[in-house]
Amino acid sequence: MGKLKLNITMSLDGCVAGPEQSEDNPLGIGGMELHEWLFPLKAFREQHGEQGGEVNESTPFAEDILAGAGATIMGRNMFGGGPGPWGVDPWRGYWGDNPPYHHPVFVLTRYPREPLELDGGTTFHFVTDGIGSALEQARAAAGDSDVSLGGGAKVAQQYLAAGLLDEIVVSLRPILLGAGARLFDNLGDPKPRLRQVQAVEAPDVTHIRYVRA
Amino acid sequence: MGKLKLNITMSLDGCVAGPEQSEDNPLGIGGMELHEWLFPLKAFREQHGEQGGEVNESTPFAEDILAGAGATIMGRNMFGGGPGPWGVDPWRGYWGDNPPYHHPVFVLTRYPREPLELDGGTTFHFVTDGIGSALEQARAAAGDSDVSLGGGAKVAQQYLAAGLLDEIVVSLRPILLGAGARLFDNLGDPKPRLRQVQAVEAPDVTHIRYVRA
Repeated sequence: MGKLKLNITMSLDGCVAGPEQSEDNPLGIGGMELHEWLFPLKAFREQHGEQGGEVNESTPFAEDILAGAGATIMGRNMFGGGPGPWGVDPWRGYWGDNPPYHHPVFVLTRYPREPLELDGGTTFHFVTDGIGSALEQARAAAGDSDVSLGGGAKVAQQYLAAGLLDEIVVSLRPILLGAGARLFDNLGDPKPRLRQVQAVEAPDVTHIRYVRA
Repeated sequence: MGKLKLNITMSLDGCVAGPEQSEDNPLGIGGMELHEWLFPLKAFREQHGEQGGEVNESTPFAEDILAGAGATIMGRNMFGGGPGPWGVDPWRGYWGDNPPYHHPVFVLTRYPREPLELDGGTTFHFVTDGIGSALEQARAAAGDSDVSLGGGAKVAQQYLAAGLLDEIVVSLRPILLGAGARLFDNLGDPKPRLRQVQAVEAPDVTHIRYVRA
């Protein structure tokens, strides 16, 4: 059975999105700067149909994010479209007709909805019966591959607090957002125990891999 | 002129001390666990008069903390003894008759006090006219050597927000404290800009060096 893993980029002050997240600015103020380690990479550019780009110490981490899983779980806020019922012409995600997942994606929501099949192998399934059910469905869909926890922070916290997260790669950026969505918050007691298994220096980012202790 | 530098150990959720700090438990609940990367090292044990110990990737960072500066600045809370005036039999610090500094230490306080000269070259000077004055005095005392910012979090924040901190080494531990003294908080706007210049994987800790951008 594959691992449930979270690859997430965090500011030095612990945020995975800036303040004032909105539909127009889903990463919040300053949040796009978190991901600037990823954009210049050849691995990222190729997946977006562009030529060239850098190959550096971040490349294996980018490849893992972009193609390392057989299914993804994400929260409703990360899928987008605002809170509440889906409505008659429902939101189809931030990613256009051919999302970069290319595998089944399980969206946690309180509002039921039929699966949304898009191009390139991405189908969004809407799960209303909780994180355990989403994980079970995602594991079944992923087969021997890992399941990626897409985020956001609240969903990550729920899986971490429940002891269901096997691995976290934190890509730590040298930026300060001041406020926003904190990753390691609301974790209950006793706190989850982690073990550091790898740390890699890369341009403008440090990637640190943790597993459940 | 030497740099003003901060070497500080931080939990993965951004705290440099746990909750409920007190005179009996100055690092707060769980806070001692932050520093467990340091205690087994030969460099640390030797300075505390003990034999043996480990030499690993953390050693240069420990040596820098233990002997890398010509003067130290710290806050009143880190010096200890509780808030308010010093009283007739004033607190002499947490470190006994021979503190591990072996150079002048400038303690930020609102309450004046005569310098406290202890064994081994450590004299505590009590500075009541602010962080700029403390830095000026510490730089004069350190000569060509660096000035170490000892902490705690609030003093570090003040120097960082004022643009006076030249370098920060964050030793990031894979622990979650849940609450406590957050290092990168209260930084004002615009936020200080940092540049990552080094990251080193070591047992149970990752050391990341940042300079002012």
